[in-house]
Amino acid sequence: MATRKIKKKVEFIAIGSELLTSHFLETNSLYLAGKLEELGLQLSYKTVVGDRLSELQEALEVARARSWLIIMSGGLGPTEDDRTKEALSRVLHRRLVFRKDLLGKIKKRFESRGLKMPLSNRKQALVIEGAEILENPNGTAPGLWVEAEEQIFILLPGPPRELKPMVENLVLPKLKNFSQKRLLQAVLRVTGCGESWVEDQLKPVYPELPKNLELITLASPGEVQVRLRLLTEEKRLVQDLRVLNRLKNKILTVLGNRVFSQEDEPLEKVIGSKLAQMKKTLACAESCSGGLLASRITDVPGSSNYFLESVVTYSNESKIRLLGVPEGLIKDKGAVSAEVAEAMARGVRERAGADFGLSTTGIAGPGGGSETKPVGLVYTGLAFPGGVLVEKNFFLGNREQIKFLTTQKALDMLRLKLVELEKKTER
Amino acid sequence: MATRKIKKKVEFIAIGSELLTSHFLETNSLYLAGKLEELGLQLSYKTVVGDRLSELQEALEVARARSWLIIMSGGLGPTEDDRTKEALSRVLHRRLVFRKDLLGKIKKRFESRGLKMPLSNRKQALVIEGAEILENPNGTAPGLWVEAEEQIFILLPGPPRELKPMVENLVLPKLKNFSQKRLLQAVLRVTGCGESWVEDQLKPVYPELPKNLELITLASPGEVQVRLRLLTEEKRLVQDLRVLNRLKNKILTVLGNRVFSQEDEPLEKVIGSKLAQMKKTLACAESCSGGLLASRITDVPGSSNYFLESVVTYSNESKIRLLGVPEGLIKDKGAVSAEVAEAMARGVRERAGADFGLSTTGIAGPGGGSETKPVGLVYTGLAFPGGVLVEKNFFLGNREQIKFLTTQKALDMLRLKLVELEKKTER
Repeated sequence: MATRKIKKKVEFIAIGSELLTSHFLETNSLYLAGKLEELGLQLSYKTVVGDRLSELQEALEVARARSWLIIMSGGLGPTEDDRTKEALSRVLHRRLVFRKDLLGKIKKRFESRGLKMPLSNRKQALVIEGAEILENPNGTAPGLWVEAEEQIFILLPGPPRELKPMVENLVLPKLKNFSQKRLLQAVLRVTGCGESWVEDQLKPVYPELPKNLELITLASPGEVQVRLRLLTEEKRLVQDLRVLNRLKNKILTVLGNRVFSQEDEPLEKVIGSKLAQMKKTLACAESCSGGLLASRITDVPGSSNYFLESVVTYSNESKIRLLGVPEGLIKDKGAVSAEVAEAMARGVRERAGADFGLSTTGIAGPGGGSETKPVGLVYTGLAFPGGVLVEKNFFLGNREQIKFLTTQKALDMLRLKLVELEKKTER
Repeated sequence: MATRKIKKKVEFIAIGSELLTSHFLETNSLYLAGKLEELGLQLSYKTVVGDRLSELQEALEVARARSWLIIMSGGLGPTEDDRTKEALSRVLHRRLVFRKDLLGKIKKRFESRGLKMPLSNRKQALVIEGAEILENPNGTAPGLWVEAEEQIFILLPGPPRELKPMVENLVLPKLKNFSQKRLLQAVLRVTGCGESWVEDQLKPVYPELPKNLELITLASPGEVQVRLRLLTEEKRLVQDLRVLNRLKNKILTVLGNRVFSQEDEPLEKVIGSKLAQMKKTLACAESCSGGLLASRITDVPGSSNYFLESVVTYSNESKIRLLGVPEGLIKDKGAVSAEVAEAMARGVRERAGADFGLSTTGIAGPGGGSETKPVGLVYTGLAFPGGVLVEKNFFLGNREQIKFLTTQKALDMLRLKLVELEKKTER
């Protein structure tokens, strides 16, 4: 056994036959990967295996042969299908012992809800010999921490609402003893430009990157994230934090006002905080965004403090009646036009008595496009104290993506205006 | 080699170091599991492994020892990190051969876009000896089908938009020769009740289930799905389809009008089709759903044919001005009340000149709740030709969940009314 070559590899095993079907995708590994990264630990393997004992045992044998830290989730429940402890006891050649104290706790859990513990739950009081118990405040299945020679096996329940607090409060504090590394991170969220533009701006930054600092860009529709990650050690923490911040500030300078958040907040949260702080109000007039703009704005708790209304005017008649868009303007220019976008923004701002009015009108597709007005053509308007701005956009994507890109653009027009006003006030 | 015991197990291996981080979750396996299920094939293992050659090779050795069919995605690109073919060639002890014809095709792909092929892409013309090429119409990386003794290895590119059409058009037709099984499925989507109610209704159905027919219920917020699955063979197809349909009709009878779709369509699509068919129009007045109701309705292509407008009235002043809700009513009963929900539904229906008016008003939280009006209290209203309906609901969840449950309820009220009117017309 001592001759077996064990590298410091980390493996995650998700257990449950449902995770092998087309209905469920396990997401615990995403959460765990993030938490492990904070300690400088990286996953080398993820495995998903069903409930069958032979296959489970086989997967554990494979993990035992190649990994140092093996984290498992699932298969700790009271049913026939829950066999994680049994499989590990076979792989490690250790007995399962019955823990009376544990049974008492599980019984109490049921009693506190006025229930009698079903007999099947007795199984949850079985523990691998020599294991440490990880208490589970949100369920009946306790977790286990098993050290075997130079390996660590961590058994956790499958439901994320049980697993996450156990990882946070029990697993990470113990794991910290096995890693001197710490991860420092900064996230800059950027909109209004493509990934290649961001990469171009970052070019002068790359040569300055210290070896232990990783700079990555991640693109998603309407957004680019710039992530800085620096692997450090406890004793170099202060020093390296300074390095990270210097680089972050350098990147902030080159990306300028394209950066909408340094706190990993979505755009609707950023404009919400600014509006609340500046005590300004907002109203929207939506055509092609179809209510999504209002919905994103109202996803933010407390948005009723600055958000007054949105009128989703899908029909021309609504645009005329609810926003005062002149009928002749729609006839002359079409509902999808800069002029109508402007009239919508002005109209909703005036009628709602808001400080700002945002408008959208465009062709979300898949039908309704023409040669002069193709699918993806969208006008976004912003009425503010003293004027109106309108932008002409061409968005690529399906209907839902075009709706989203429209709201992202409208929110960003408002953000830039708020930033401008903030600066004026500061002067 | 011949003595190695190989069971008919199916394994999926996703390749790419990014899939082991906290940023990306691979979803190809979910799609593949569904497609394999159609042929009666079930995944036994899913593995995620990074780009490092030694680890990749190790994962392939493990798969080779335990699985019959091994499907891989990723690592077929032109970069240094793309080493799937190299790893498999080592595991199978087969050479990589250079295919000039393939290189020509890859070159042409670049030329058709007016680009010169970078040298690095030459690598993509390397093929494992004896492999069959799977053409990739949406990218430069061809796939491979490799048979080795009694095992099959399928190499596919990682991006879902490249992988999916290749699976559909090339992999499944070939795999059909290896399985006589076929899956028949029926999906009933249900709302307005909990999973336990559905289970109760299904109790008399369970004893009637033939052995090869699986009945499962899947709950998600605001919806329960009832799925019937029957594994059959080509020669029993017609007979078993009859069995499936008989059971499906039985379930439709016990669940009644709680079933909103038999075609796996979301609620907004169902009401959209009905409105379009009946040539009726809809307008909405939203408070706590904050625009999400309109956004769901307008996610459906062609919704401009029946959806006129939504007024998202977050402020009381908006409710009064845009919907004609009496100021005194809001003062007396509060904005969150059955009376205001009714006035909102009536108001928007009349002002928009629509056949139907839907309204929502409630407390989405996390703040704003009180003892008499807690977070989750939501009134939904429906004004229709001849009357108004209002329902009082208590929803559990966070802000976004409460918003969604509100829209689900409002849409379902409309659906039930449309079904009732359809029936009247039929008589």
